[in-house]
Amino acid sequence: MLIKAGPLLAEIDKPADLRKLDKSQLVQVSSELRQFIIDNVSVYGGHFGASLGVVEMTVALHYVFNTPVDQLVWDVGHQAYGHKILTGRKDQFYTNRLYKGLSGFPKRKESDYDTFGVGHSSTSISAALGMAVASKYKGDAEKQHIAVIGDGAMTGGIAFEAMNQAGVSNTNLLIILNDNCMSIDPNVGALKDYLTDITTSQAYNKVRDEVWNLLGKMSKFGSSAREIASKVETSIKSFLIKPSNLFESLNLRYFGPIDGHDVNHMVNIFNDLKKIPGPKLLHCVTVKGKGYGPAEKDQTKWHAPGKFDKVTGEIRKKVPTVVQAPKYQQVFGHTIVELAKKNDKIIGITPAMPSGSSLNVMMKEMPDRAFDVDIAEQHAVTFSAGLATQGLVPFCNIYSTFMQRGYDQVIHDVCIQNLHVVFCLDRAGFAGADGPTHHGAYDLAYMRCIPNIVVSAPMNEEELRNLMYTAQLPREGAFSIRYPRGKGVMPNWQTPMEEIKVGTGRVIKEGEDLAILTIGHVGNYAIQVTEQLAQEGIYPGHYDMRFVKPLDEALLHDIFSRYKNIVTVEDGCVMGGFGSAILEFMSEHNYVAKIKRLGIPDRVVEHGEQIELHNECGFGPEGIATTVRQMLVADLADKT
Amino acid sequence: MLIKAGPLLAEIDKPADLRKLDKSQLVQVSSELRQFIIDNVSVYGGHFGASLGVVEMTVALHYVFNTPVDQLVWDVGHQAYGHKILTGRKDQFYTNRLYKGLSGFPKRKESDYDTFGVGHSSTSISAALGMAVASKYKGDAEKQHIAVIGDGAMTGGIAFEAMNQAGVSNTNLLIILNDNCMSIDPNVGALKDYLTDITTSQAYNKVRDEVWNLLGKMSKFGSSAREIASKVETSIKSFLIKPSNLFESLNLRYFGPIDGHDVNHMVNIFNDLKKIPGPKLLHCVTVKGKGYGPAEKDQTKWHAPGKFDKVTGEIRKKVPTVVQAPKYQQVFGHTIVELAKKNDKIIGITPAMPSGSSLNVMMKEMPDRAFDVDIAEQHAVTFSAGLATQGLVPFCNIYSTFMQRGYDQVIHDVCIQNLHVVFCLDRAGFAGADGPTHHGAYDLAYMRCIPNIVVSAPMNEEELRNLMYTAQLPREGAFSIRYPRGKGVMPNWQTPMEEIKVGTGRVIKEGEDLAILTIGHVGNYAIQVTEQLAQEGIYPGHYDMRFVKPLDEALLHDIFSRYKNIVTVEDGCVMGGFGSAILEFMSEHNYVAKIKRLGIPDRVVEHGEQIELHNECGFGPEGIATTVRQMLVADLADKT
Repeated sequence: MLIKAGPLLAEIDKPADLRKLDKSQLVQVSSELRQFIIDNVSVYGGHFGASLGVVEMTVALHYVFNTPVDQLVWDVGHQAYGHKILTGRKDQFYTNRLYKGLSGFPKRKESDYDTFGVGHSSTSISAALGMAVASKYKGDAEKQHIAVIGDGAMTGGIAFEAMNQAGVSNTNLLIILNDNCMSIDPNVGALKDYLTDITTSQAYNKVRDEVWNLLGKMSKFGSSAREIASKVETSIKSFLIKPSNLFESLNLRYFGPIDGHDVNHMVNIFNDLKKIPGPKLLHCVTVKGKGYGPAEKDQTKWHAPGKFDKVTGEIRKKVPTVVQAPKYQQVFGHTIVELAKKNDKIIGITPAMPSGSSLNVMMKEMPDRAFDVDIAEQHAVTFSAGLATQGLVPFCNIYSTFMQRGYDQVIHDVCIQNLHVVFCLDRAGFAGADGPTHHGAYDLAYMRCIPNIVVSAPMNEEELRNLMYTAQLPREGAFSIRYPRGKGVMPNWQTPMEEIKVGTGRVIKEGEDLAILTIGHVGNYAIQVTEQLAQEGIYPGHYDMRFVKPLDEALLHDIFSRYKNIVTVEDGCVMGGFGSAILEFMSEHNYVAKIKRLGIPDRVVEHGEQIELHNECGFGPEGIATTVRQMLVADLADKT
Repeated sequence: MLIKAGPLLAEIDKPADLRKLDKSQLVQVSSELRQFIIDNVSVYGGHFGASLGVVEMTVALHYVFNTPVDQLVWDVGHQAYGHKILTGRKDQFYTNRLYKGLSGFPKRKESDYDTFGVGHSSTSISAALGMAVASKYKGDAEKQHIAVIGDGAMTGGIAFEAMNQAGVSNTNLLIILNDNCMSIDPNVGALKDYLTDITTSQAYNKVRDEVWNLLGKMSKFGSSAREIASKVETSIKSFLIKPSNLFESLNLRYFGPIDGHDVNHMVNIFNDLKKIPGPKLLHCVTVKGKGYGPAEKDQTKWHAPGKFDKVTGEIRKKVPTVVQAPKYQQVFGHTIVELAKKNDKIIGITPAMPSGSSLNVMMKEMPDRAFDVDIAEQHAVTFSAGLATQGLVPFCNIYSTFMQRGYDQVIHDVCIQNLHVVFCLDRAGFAGADGPTHHGAYDLAYMRCIPNIVVSAPMNEEELRNLMYTAQLPREGAFSIRYPRGKGVMPNWQTPMEEIKVGTGRVIKEGEDLAILTIGHVGNYAIQVTEQLAQEGIYPGHYDMRFVKPLDEALLHDIFSRYKNIVTVEDGCVMGGFGSAILEFMSEHNYVAKIKRLGIPDRVVEHGEQIELHNECGFGPEGIATTVRQMLVADLADKT
């Protein structure tokens, strides 16, 4: 269904059309753009609050800057819906985040206006600086380079690293700090307090102006006052000219704070800033969810609300499927509290994902024992290591895809020191509609090559609970538990917890012809497959390995001595992952078997529902069944 | 040989002994400690300038704080020699960095005084904050937690992430900023300028005092002046009280700058700071190499000079071995310039390792085309991605071990977008004396699981040059080239460059009984081995695969159709690495062969000479030969 745009927006296909409008029409364009986003997301779902918050900024940016020649980089990209709509994708917008449809994030393949693919936070300054340095090198002095970055993303270390270089780069770089005090959840660290301080009681630049004006007036008075004033002025000048602001400390000219919802004022400011060479930062204050009451009121809930009734603001609940199993996230959130009540050493850590990970359950119940460290995966890991040196047991919950940010810290600060840190890797495997930037595809491969770490994945809620229970028992070394986004399979999931001996898998079903070895949630597909194949007279065995490291060697010896055909299934990259660990075992013990490894192939897999992607990659139930049949047919052919 | 310590130092075994001394003796202790470091390093080699720069700070810290109860974390750890000497390791210090000897870095296993193992930069604030939060949670209000971090390390993003949390943590955390304007090379970014500004012409706190004093005086004058002064004061007060310093912006109380070589002053300051609760930062200005003339003058050279004549300051050159081959680093440095002269799209990037990587050759010859971005691996990668979007060809040179810091950026910003960025992974494989924190053990495993990247390693200088040549030719996607620390094998290395077809290996020697597949420099061991074994009547084939990804499938089909015994050799983790890639190929194509994978085992391997570690892990020449013999014996046994 095509959503109808307002009269001005309907005529805008590209920013060039926008630029034909009179400045006086921009308020209306903004209003229509906002309505179009509301109309679309209410029907089709998607990220919401962030894009509403930058409607005016988006209009002003494309009105003033010569996109796509000028390079505009959106950080994270949750907020780029307006940008997409103004840059040729209005009529496709209803396919946003759907399988084969538009990506929910800017993406270079999708449009020339998407100068840099995003998804993970805090990359925009580095990327835009690279572009700006390239322009400088090519002698293109006119070209503008703009990074729009939220105050949440600003806490990510790479943003700071980038500013450190930007400040001495002498490039046409404009950083727009989109300050709304929010990531998905509220920001909590010192930077947020600082920005709030600037913005509220004593607006920084207002004070500066005031001081200057007063000094000017003073010099008109009698000589003694003048003398003093002169001395004061000298001191203050040096003080004022010297860096006196976080960003100016890094040699970025600081402008603002300004109201990020005043489109005409922003147009003026952007025009002014275009004329000022060198790296600079404009501080814009915006409201996440702006213009849609419920979203302004509960910003976390409305970050990505799903479909909703735009009139009543009622979020449409998904119709429950046959069994109403909980999300793995909920199981994590409640189980860590349950464990922490019994083990006072347990501490919870999340980098800016309290609601996404459900650590907010613990933060509410045990506020002194659960920490949101803002967007800061590197720090989250090393902070956990520091806690572990003092005998505490940190549960550091990081999405698989974001753990890539803390990889060095896992190796260098946790595993080399053999510290007892528990990593809960949320959203492991295909992330679904968020697409390739968010797929947790690589963790099994990049974790299992490190010494001093247990690498595990539960097949269901009970196993997640038991693995968490096991992980907190006194031990040396790290323990990682990966689980997918979304629902498990057990409506009655609050089973009593018990230890799982590290490095032991379990037999789901003994079989005859072939063994299916699974790791994690995809084991449930294998259950369907073995049931289905039994009706065809095919009886594969099914083994839920639970640990990629250490492998259950006893179980594997048994399997390899009985089966000559093996299928491994993982929601992770086949290159170097779980299946490869099985190959290593086979080789080390001189077994000979045919092994077909199913998992994420060696290419970038786009977005879609998880099951759509599993099917596309051949490890949904049908894909597994097909592979089993093919192997057995090939085996028969070999034998005859 | 035991180096003799001065009379006071000789009596100090532990900090408790130091604390028995009168404060008036600390200057002499410092002097003796400095001399002891000079005496030791001149004879045994090691890091030098950094430890000389913190002699007084080290003495003052252990004098004032109750180590090891109070937790002292040294960032990076280059500078911790004085700390080691004062904390029970004086008499073992001559074994520093030797195989089985003391580690060159703080290490938890080595001493209770080493609260956190370090090596990579910028982790100390996170770690110390973890400890401080643990103390707060345990109700230990007295315990102190100190992170000593250089201004170089301060540019690493994780330090900023940590300060963002520290500022709101309400813990007993003292960050000591050891400001000497240097990493290994001079720091270059905006932060360095800022710190220099604070420290030099207008010392920040001096200005503040001056303004306050003047305001005080002003209020004593006539009414009109007083009124104005009062107004000014209000404005300025709010201005002064509001964050007005980079660190205060992050809610860290800022003290300093102070002279980091005045031991008595530091003792006073530390005693004062102990009484001030909450997170705080003390800015100490030091001179790297302090107290040893030549080291003060050329700080990069004297970062880790090797052995030297302490009287003349002459650095002892290593006696040349039979063939005087260049270091791979030199080959990289000269080759990139050679290529860049012909291809104006090439840009060089290093995160703070211009001399270590030899990118300084390009920085000197082509200053507008080579960038040192300070310690900022994440940014280095995404900055490179930004350059690549504009059609430039960045060569991003990062040590293998530090590339772990940029891992997410390699996946998210380069490979998912299929951008043409060349990664030169220096010091891949065992790093040698720097030990486990610096071993480049994991890159083959963590790189090859990512799509859209070529993973390669040269066996010698000529291959490095040819791979660099190949990598800069127009293409899509990333290209990684890993090579080890230290010397190659070709005295005449400046061979004309030519393209190597991506994904092709080469036959070094056809054989009969068994195939040795090597990747990278360890191929040279295999050459020795095949020569040696030929004398025993054993004729293994030897294949230099050059690419881990894509594999040379044609060559592998040939190998697997001819050999049933294969040894793979890599200077990288066997778990998930090159050998596993060969297993995957074998499995996918239904070959059956015995494969023995040699490489870095699944444990933390300590420091030592590279060859010592290769031998320890069984992939030095003797280890490879032994493995070949064993496989052939087993094969014979199977056949009979």
